[in-house]
Amino acid sequence: MKNCLVAQSGGPTAVINASAIGVLEEALESKCYDNVYAGINGIEGILNENIVNLSQMPYKKLKTLKYTPSSGLGSCRYKMKDYRFSSLEYEKLFNIFKEKQIEAFFYIGGNDSMDTVRTLSEYTKLNNINVQIIGIPKSIDNDLMETDHTPGFGSAAKFIATTILETYLDSSVYPSKGVFILEVMGRDTGWLTSCAALAKIGNDSVVDFIYLPETAFIKAKFLEDVRNKYKEQNQVFIVVSEGIKDENGLLLGDDIVNSTHDNFGHNQLGGVCRNLKDLILESKITSRVKTLELGVTQRSAMHCISLVDLEEAYKLGQEAVKYSCQGVTGYMLAIRRLKGDLYETETILVDPSKVANHIKYFPKSWITEGNNWVTAEAISYITPLIQGSPVLPMKNGLPEYTTLKELIKEGL
Amino acid sequence: MKNCLVAQSGGPTAVINASAIGVLEEALESKCYDNVYAGINGIEGILNENIVNLSQMPYKKLKTLKYTPSSGLGSCRYKMKDYRFSSLEYEKLFNIFKEKQIEAFFYIGGNDSMDTVRTLSEYTKLNNINVQIIGIPKSIDNDLMETDHTPGFGSAAKFIATTILETYLDSSVYPSKGVFILEVMGRDTGWLTSCAALAKIGNDSVVDFIYLPETAFIKAKFLEDVRNKYKEQNQVFIVVSEGIKDENGLLLGDDIVNSTHDNFGHNQLGGVCRNLKDLILESKITSRVKTLELGVTQRSAMHCISLVDLEEAYKLGQEAVKYSCQGVTGYMLAIRRLKGDLYETETILVDPSKVANHIKYFPKSWITEGNNWVTAEAISYITPLIQGSPVLPMKNGLPEYTTLKELIKEGL
Repeated sequence: MKNCLVAQSGGPTAVINASAIGVLEEALESKCYDNVYAGINGIEGILNENIVNLSQMPYKKLKTLKYTPSSGLGSCRYKMKDYRFSSLEYEKLFNIFKEKQIEAFFYIGGNDSMDTVRTLSEYTKLNNINVQIIGIPKSIDNDLMETDHTPGFGSAAKFIATTILETYLDSSVYPSKGVFILEVMGRDTGWLTSCAALAKIGNDSVVDFIYLPETAFIKAKFLEDVRNKYKEQNQVFIVVSEGIKDENGLLLGDDIVNSTHDNFGHNQLGGVCRNLKDLILESKITSRVKTLELGVTQRSAMHCISLVDLEEAYKLGQEAVKYSCQGVTGYMLAIRRLKGDLYETETILVDPSKVANHIKYFPKSWITEGNNWVTAEAISYITPLIQGSPVLPMKNGLPEYTTLKELIKEGL
Repeated sequence: MKNCLVAQSGGPTAVINASAIGVLEEALESKCYDNVYAGINGIEGILNENIVNLSQMPYKKLKTLKYTPSSGLGSCRYKMKDYRFSSLEYEKLFNIFKEKQIEAFFYIGGNDSMDTVRTLSEYTKLNNINVQIIGIPKSIDNDLMETDHTPGFGSAAKFIATTILETYLDSSVYPSKGVFILEVMGRDTGWLTSCAALAKIGNDSVVDFIYLPETAFIKAKFLEDVRNKYKEQNQVFIVVSEGIKDENGLLLGDDIVNSTHDNFGHNQLGGVCRNLKDLILESKITSRVKTLELGVTQRSAMHCISLVDLEEAYKLGQEAVKYSCQGVTGYMLAIRRLKGDLYETETILVDPSKVANHIKYFPKSWITEGNNWVTAEAISYITPLIQGSPVLPMKNGLPEYTTLKELIKEGL
């Protein structure tokens, strides 16, 4: 008996389950593994022996997990202790693995999860434990080093650009138009926000300004941008990252939270876009300012995902199993974009220590001189990642999503 | 030469342009009219002679307006003066009509627009003016009397229920789940909010509580609902209308705005969901409370519309022209649902004075006893309206939307 285990960690994406289903289907098809277990809530759940056997679930229904957004296996933000100081957790974990005859562990996650991949594989090598550890990347933020991009990013990009087109049209219907500010996720990096440049009607971009965390946000410069554009066209559409910081490195979002939180410690405000709205109102440029925070929709909008992204997420799951069958351990799979006009990629293996605890920033050379727009290189980089729209399983007019809870109920 | 005019008014919907294209295509195909003019920004723009000739625009491109959300002809919230006190505007308007040989006017709008339809048709009758006036309903809010439902509602319902499924899955990934509050549009009525009941995984609703403006929102009862449900399942998903009012008829949303607006008069807060979040935090039920305001996405999300809704919006445009060719004037078109198990409808004519300045509330008999859920009748009523998903014209991974501005540029 030879089994494997798959789990998810960190923030969800719309296509993270496609990687898990890729692992499952390749493991069963290749006959490399007898059972595919899933750890519920990542490494935290596995340590609590919260493990289910996917191979025993109703397969027809389980397959629809590929078309269900968000970490279907649950997630965690758990950091393993350093094994050099305390190996108790490690011993517990590999005892559980031994008991269940688990010989390969596939961990789908971001920066922090790759630190777990690194530390677990170091521990197995040091202790001659026969368990392969392989990392599969995911992140809507696209901030992982060593990979051309991360699964999850393309779908978020597609939803963000689509929603920008639609909210732009909505904001344009009345004679007095005003300013619209749309806030996009990305605490550290501007990858997601840069996708605003893709939103075009005909050949014209609908967004006027894009502000990323990679350059300092200067309030006076921002107001000058808005004032001039408003004079010119009576309408300004702004897309801003939640992570923009001023010249002193202070978050614009936190700024307003700190200034207004009440005695209960509530963060009643918090949105960068609300802060920018106030700046514009105070400057008297116009009193018509609307804001929208996309919030968690941008990482969960399966109904608007990219087919390329879905297929890449699935393929990385498959290839992780293929590599494991060849004996590979201690690596993260990554995507390498091939040179040439056509978009083509290959899967490569990278050292997780080069990914863990690092951040891949949006290149400064892709930000234009005024720090309020991105270059054609950025658009060429993102465009292939948002192509295609899968047909989702539908039931009664809505996507037919599933959950492990439902699957377990059905399996009984 | 015999021409007609179409215009849009009030809040946009995702399918409002389908009605305009329905008018255009039927007018040209029936050869009833030589030219189809569009008034830009509704009656306000028409009074300013802001009128374009749709028949002269590049047709292949113009057709894509059917698959573009938001009032493509622009909108207004302009109320005509009472002609009994001042007929100046009316004289100006019908002089413009005469000059352009416009013999029929199709006005796509909601309550207020139907008041314009009523008043204009009264004026034409009193003054023997040979212009037919016909109203075409639209509203995401579904609050128009005399029609089974309004075009625009089904698409908003589909997007809201889809987004609820996706945000529910997102809010469920971590072991500690907490409370999620999603705020839906609907200042006066709960139609849109009631759609939350459609969101199911398998046979189970994902939403725990639905609060509508049609019944008083009692804070103590709300906290009891949340406390009990949180104890039971460690997670509560709430969908609430922006228009909920307390037992004294005060808006929950306004409440918090008034208590915190600053010297600049900014409405820094405003969301009902933020108010409810504070209530929960103060009650110490849990400190994990997330909120999401869907905002204008729910009325503009063309990428997630209902095919039934799109086709009905288009058909009402066509039928308005057919009726006008038969000499009909002074009516609003409405949808009547036929009795029977299958969803079938017919178009009827209704008196706009029965629509204008009235509001169709969500039936109290469709709200369950605890005032926090809706009955099976509500679900049966909404379900047929969200069926089907059209394939949108796409370009480079994004919907190919168009604007009159682009069309005019191309036509030159």
